[in-house]
Amino acid sequence: MESVIRVNLEQMSYDIAIAPGSLEKLGELITPLQLGQKVLIVSNPEIFHHYGQRVITSVEKTGFEVACCTLPAGEPHKTLETLQKVYDLALEHRLERSATMIALGGGIVGDMTGFAASTWLRGINVVQVPTTLLAMVDASIGGKTGVNHPQGKNLIGAFHQPRKVIIDPLVLKTLPEREFRAGMAEVIKYGVIWDGELFTHLEQAQRLDQMQFIEPSLLQEILQRSCQSKAEVVSKDEKELGLRAILNYGHTIGHAVESLTGYTTVLHGEAVGIGMVAASRIAVKLGLWGEDCDRRQLALIEKAGLPTKLPTGLNIDDILTSLLTDKKVKNKKVRFILPTEIGVVTITDQVSSEVIREVLQGMF
Amino acid sequence: MESVIRVNLEQMSYDIAIAPGSLEKLGELITPLQLGQKVLIVSNPEIFHHYGQRVITSVEKTGFEVACCTLPAGEPHKTLETLQKVYDLALEHRLERSATMIALGGGIVGDMTGFAASTWLRGINVVQVPTTLLAMVDASIGGKTGVNHPQGKNLIGAFHQPRKVIIDPLVLKTLPEREFRAGMAEVIKYGVIWDGELFTHLEQAQRLDQMQFIEPSLLQEILQRSCQSKAEVVSKDEKELGLRAILNYGHTIGHAVESLTGYTTVLHGEAVGIGMVAASRIAVKLGLWGEDCDRRQLALIEKAGLPTKLPTGLNIDDILTSLLTDKKVKNKKVRFILPTEIGVVTITDQVSSEVIREVLQGMF
Repeated sequence: MESVIRVNLEQMSYDIAIAPGSLEKLGELITPLQLGQKVLIVSNPEIFHHYGQRVITSVEKTGFEVACCTLPAGEPHKTLETLQKVYDLALEHRLERSATMIALGGGIVGDMTGFAASTWLRGINVVQVPTTLLAMVDASIGGKTGVNHPQGKNLIGAFHQPRKVIIDPLVLKTLPEREFRAGMAEVIKYGVIWDGELFTHLEQAQRLDQMQFIEPSLLQEILQRSCQSKAEVVSKDEKELGLRAILNYGHTIGHAVESLTGYTTVLHGEAVGIGMVAASRIAVKLGLWGEDCDRRQLALIEKAGLPTKLPTGLNIDDILTSLLTDKKVKNKKVRFILPTEIGVVTITDQVSSEVIREVLQGMF
Repeated sequence: MESVIRVNLEQMSYDIAIAPGSLEKLGELITPLQLGQKVLIVSNPEIFHHYGQRVITSVEKTGFEVACCTLPAGEPHKTLETLQKVYDLALEHRLERSATMIALGGGIVGDMTGFAASTWLRGINVVQVPTTLLAMVDASIGGKTGVNHPQGKNLIGAFHQPRKVIIDPLVLKTLPEREFRAGMAEVIKYGVIWDGELFTHLEQAQRLDQMQFIEPSLLQEILQRSCQSKAEVVSKDEKELGLRAILNYGHTIGHAVESLTGYTTVLHGEAVGIGMVAASRIAVKLGLWGEDCDRRQLALIEKAGLPTKLPTGLNIDDILTSLLTDKKVKNKKVRFILPTEIGVVTITDQVSSEVIREVLQGMF
């Protein structure tokens, strides 16, 4: 089982390679890219403990000179300050402009490594090796990189496309179940916004809440269709001038929930799941799509074992205020991605705060 | 007297407008760019004291909503930490993706503001309003932005082209003489690397060491020819894959001198002047150009009142080590830009450390 998906961005095009066991072949997989000799692997302690040596061995075997760097895990560490550690190692190992950073980890490692690579010497190579479901189907593709500002997620960042994305589904075996479910939220998202067939295949699956209950062939299909969806959208709109915004389905309310809970109690994917429930309800209220579609989406989110209610203790006024600090705000109008049928969404900034409030009140 | 120079970079093309009194017209000058309503002016305390109100008045008059931010002056403050202040204000004033940062100041303000604009929400607009001669003819043009790493200048940065560069030669009246002379080093650089006619016009000038002794028409020509040189080189090679490297004439040794003196005792332009003297001597030793050209360049640097010797106390081994940490190092080979005739340079990494050592020993 092996899939290669092309992200078409002219000179910056690249492949997403999905295959069980690709971690052991990392060196061979990056050799055709004609990278410089020096490689800096950036990871977090746990992932590095599981997979670091395997990656080092593979990359060294093909002649690269390797240095490693682990960053503390968790959103609170996704800061400019933590980034300093990567810069220090880049300097210590004298990474030149032809050098490469390999991001081995989840979305946080990927975003930070991508941003470090984007800004070190005004831009060096980065290869994304995502180890969470969420990073595989979303964060590692498309070149969005960045760190958090104390008051907002990913406010500081850059667009910096990877030279390649390498996905080994086998690493998901060590992923905590809760994180697997969180990643499934983004998979469901692609079903709603882009790939209706993926949506129905997910509906046919017996379970979606644990990796062990998913057939390897279905898992491969989930990864492939999700990456394909993201690749198609990004290829059409790299810098998020239009279409790409649909990828933020569920993220408008989702970001507010994450921000107000301090990025610690609710996982990003869980927040997106909650945000999709809210967006779907808003779409129903605006007459954009029907109760039946809303129920089908809710059923999938529940099948993935994801929360569908707002965390207790959240204040609706705080959510409304937080929406206005989102990056996507334009002329003080909050932009929503709303579904119109399975596989199709629309973008609007015409949602009144009354409607938002009403929907949120029904979600406790 | 008014010059407009186009920097050709496809969709990212922009104008450099040079005219006495343009500071008062800033609002009008940026209005055609169709920027969003919010503007953040970033400056340093002294420049802001002199020109801040004038700029605010002009920009507010044309309907922009203005916030201001001053950063401490000096290379030691050109850090990620200082940048945090800009991000904090960007958040406080809710700068959206259509918003604009205006860099009102010298090279440090321009580099930092450009980098902040490049990374805030993954990229917002920046307008460069340089207030030093050096920033006018060099730093404000071409999109190089960044901050220093404790162990190296501009190691962290991005390419981010401004939407416009606005140069008002009258602001040079408040520029300290020493900084004016430092800027003249970059002007002489353009004469050596690109515009031989500029070089001979500089030779014909009575004095180059103080603004008050330079005719307004010559000053306008100096600014225009220098900006034109930079614009032509950058248009041909935005990302420094080849040609653009010639702009680093004098910077190889120059950066080492700055770095080893802690970025405090030697100004950037002064270091570049010293670096040009060294590069010229290396070129003589390699038989690339003659003693006569070397003397003519030295005479110009002296006429500009710039130092032509290495600072006392510098150790030659330290300089050689420092050369290897420069961004431009490739495969551990130091790259030099060396003149071959007035207006023409060549790029080489074939300079032995013996030759470098010999030249540097003659410069105390």
